Amino acid sequence: MARGEYQNSKLQHLESALESGALAQVRRILNSDLQAADVAHLLESSPPKERKLLWGLIDEENEGDVLQHLGDEIQSWLLNQMSVQEMANAISDLDTDDVADVLQNLPDKVTQEVLTTMDEQDRDRIEAVLSYPEDTAGGLMNTDTITVRPDITIEVVLRYLRRHRSLPDMTDSLLVVNRRDEFIGSLPINKILVSDGDTTVREVMSTDVVSIDPETTDTQVAQLFERHDLISAPVVESHTHKLLGRITIDDVVDVIREEADHSLLSMAGLDEDEDTFAPALKTSRRRAVWLGINLITAFVASGVIGMFQDTLDKVVALAVLMPIVASMGGIAGSQTLTLVIRGQAIGHLDSGNMGWLVNREFIVGLSNGLLWSVIIALATYIWFQDIQISLIIAIAIVINLIIAVLAGALLPLLLKKLGIDPALAGSVILTTVTDVVGFMAFLGLATVFYL
Amino acid sequence: MARGEYQNSKLQHLESALESGALAQVRRILNSDLQAADVAHLLESSPPKERKLLWGLIDEENEGDVLQHLGDEIQSWLLNQMSVQEMANAISDLDTDDVADVLQNLPDKVTQEVLTTMDEQDRDRIEAVLSYPEDTAGGLMNTDTITVRPDITIEVVLRYLRRHRSLPDMTDSLLVVNRRDEFIGSLPINKILVSDGDTTVREVMSTDVVSIDPETTDTQVAQLFERHDLISAPVVESHTHKLLGRITIDDVVDVIREEADHSLLSMAGLDEDEDTFAPALKTSRRRAVWLGINLITAFVASGVIGMFQDTLDKVVALAVLMPIVASMGGIAGSQTLTLVIRGQAIGHLDSGNMGWLVNREFIVGLSNGLLWSVIIALATYIWFQDIQISLIIAIAIVINLIIAVLAGALLPLLLKKLGIDPALAGSVILTTVTDVVGFMAFLGLATVFYL
Repeated sequence: MARGEYQNSKLQHLESALESGALAQVRRILNSDLQAADVAHLLESSPPKERKLLWGLIDEENEGDVLQHLGDEIQSWLLNQMSVQEMANAISDLDTDDVADVLQNLPDKVTQEVLTTMDEQDRDRIEAVLSYPEDTAGGLMNTDTITVRPDITIEVVLRYLRRHRSLPDMTDSLLVVNRRDEFIGSLPINKILVSDGDTTVREVMSTDVVSIDPETTDTQVAQLFERHDLISAPVVESHTHKLLGRITIDDVVDVIREEADHSLLSMAGLDEDEDTFAPALKTSRRRAVWLGINLITAFVASGVIGMFQDTLDKVVALAVLMPIVASMGGIAGSQTLTLVIRGQAIGHLDSGNMGWLVNREFIVGLSNGLLWSVIIALATYIWFQDIQISLIIAIAIVINLIIAVLAGALLPLLLKKLGIDPALAGSVILTTVTDVVGFMAFLGLATVFYL
Repeated sequence: MARGEYQNSKLQHLESALESGALAQVRRILNSDLQAADVAHLLESSPPKERKLLWGLIDEENEGDVLQHLGDEIQSWLLNQMSVQEMANAISDLDTDDVADVLQNLPDKVTQEVLTTMDEQDRDRIEAVLSYPEDTAGGLMNTDTITVRPDITIEVVLRYLRRHRSLPDMTDSLLVVNRRDEFIGSLPINKILVSDGDTTVREVMSTDVVSIDPETTDTQVAQLFERHDLISAPVVESHTHKLLGRITIDDVVDVIREEADHSLLSMAGLDEDEDTFAPALKTSRRRAVWLGINLITAFVASGVIGMFQDTLDKVVALAVLMPIVASMGGIAGSQTLTLVIRGQAIGHLDSGNMGWLVNREFIVGLSNGLLWSVIIALATYIWFQDIQISLIIAIAIVINLIIAVLAGALLPLLLKKLGIDPALAGSVILTTVTDVVGFMAFLGLATVFYL
């Protein structure tokens, strides 16, 4: 019964079949035993060679379903190996928003070719979704809504639904529109079930509904869904009140996952679509860029140290201790930076409360600076028996910790205003600041003291 | 119509009312204009003083609803200021799983007191949920399921539902149980709508349903929901097949958000329940601990440098360049570490494919090591005109980059086996490794060369 375990045993079967080379058995498990989402997960968890082998064993009619569940990077890779006709077949059964997502990963020319293989209604629907950027409500929406008029009775709605025989996935409510296709309310499925047949839609529909303009960003859509525990929401043009489609929770869950991944991975210079099992060459090339950027900041820090060579020549203990000053600043700053980036992502921070936060961070930086400077000064004195160096490192620690937390708090705001992603650029710039300030304060003070 | 904007204008109203001190108006907006989730978000986005003021203005009958939407840390803080009776009133209208969540943040004694104020049925339900850890399917479940027997007709189900007049939130299917309360299938609401009245439940119910054992971890639950696009799933004891309750997507979305936040925040030594607007004193104390842990690793690195004081005394250029070796290792390692921690979190990595990954990372570390060592050696030669130092730094870079990526790949596995959270401890240990190896390789090689 417990499905999780049941799936795992299926996967183990598959692995042993793969190992023993029983490809017919693998093919059967892939195409009939496992669900498309599980096959996609399996592909994502496989190194390139096995991945290619497994994909080759998936029946053509299942390809679209599996594709839809794959990450962008793997999806593009597979699509690039297909002909236009294969692609069109593979995606023909998908929801409009999923087809749009797939097409957005293709070159424009190929997208046009695939669109021409479709019938007019499908093409119109997909072009409607494609006309909005992928990261907006318009790009997330599905056009497969079931609409009803306000003046019919629940009995008529029920008869209409029975003729349909099936409803789109994630349908928790029907959408009520007037003759001009303007959205006026929603009729929850549960209300249909518990209402008498002769009441009208107007009497039981909800008008206090979260409706979403197609230009709304996907971040805002996710916040609305999370805050209001929505399963689906109508997308409505806010000027004309025209109903364009609806957004469902499954797509919003993907947005939430991607956003959270984005902050985490960007801070390490990785892409949120990063394929865990990308081949070595591709991975090396991408990471090399990030290492190169960081190398520049490392040379900047070295340049600062280089300015104080004479001082270092005189007092070698400074060289031993200087990484402590830089590293404490880096840690303190990155705590604040992470907190602010996450606060921005979940919508807790705006210009109104930022002042309070900067102020609090200043107090935190100052008090932790004072606390740790005393401890570090003591440790330094015990180690080098030099009261001057102990004093110098204490002052440098206080300075660097205060600058670090202020930079951590203000950098994300500044970067956002400049249109630069704080999660991506924040930590590199922050490290440069804390290294430069740390070395400058420590070695600079030492130069002044020892002159 | 567009609710997002509409809410924002409400919030702006509130802010201007707050500023002008029109508390009666603020109270009205808080209690009747805004939804509980919006009020909770407002509280989370407010510094402590305003937060206290706003909470005081919320009517007692709305407190529970708002509480339920608040983060753990703020929730505990508010609950600790309430009497048992106030608490019991505040949470009386919540879902069982939400009540259990709230109670889990209280001392055991208070929980018992609150439970005694409830009627027996509610108490039994909540104790059922409380008997499982918070981070398992049992702790996430709701006990408010609507169950039906397989042999009745759809017509009877409809009549039964109409008598009920309302269904629990997020009800996308009724659960089918036999006389012994064993789960045998689910009856999607949509199927009820499109089926003829005289078919039986057995004929239209789905038996291929993802059912979840109460001991399943919340991470696995989230993966099942994401992979299968579920809105709700039954919780079933896997040995007895007894139906215990159901889990709904709104709670799973919270799990997904918390997990993603956990990786991000833990890597900076922050708690995922971290209140963005926690007071300075509390924040300082927490961060101090993290700074202290990192200080130890910084002193370890300094200790390594200290071993080579004589060499540094002879060649001051080494002091200038040594941070580059450590920093490049730190960056390369943390990229791998982040990728592996995220791969573990979304279930891409297991012992089966880890070998491939370690191998790939070795190649990546080696090739990026070779690439950047050439560039760094050239830059070093231009700067210091010293071929020996250029060679030494090149070799040290290659060594450190390889060790860094291997440590980044293997540390999370090792930590997980030891029961330590890789997201929390990984980056500290990694930095220690890359600092120690970096300084040791660079200064050690220099000592050998220059002797």
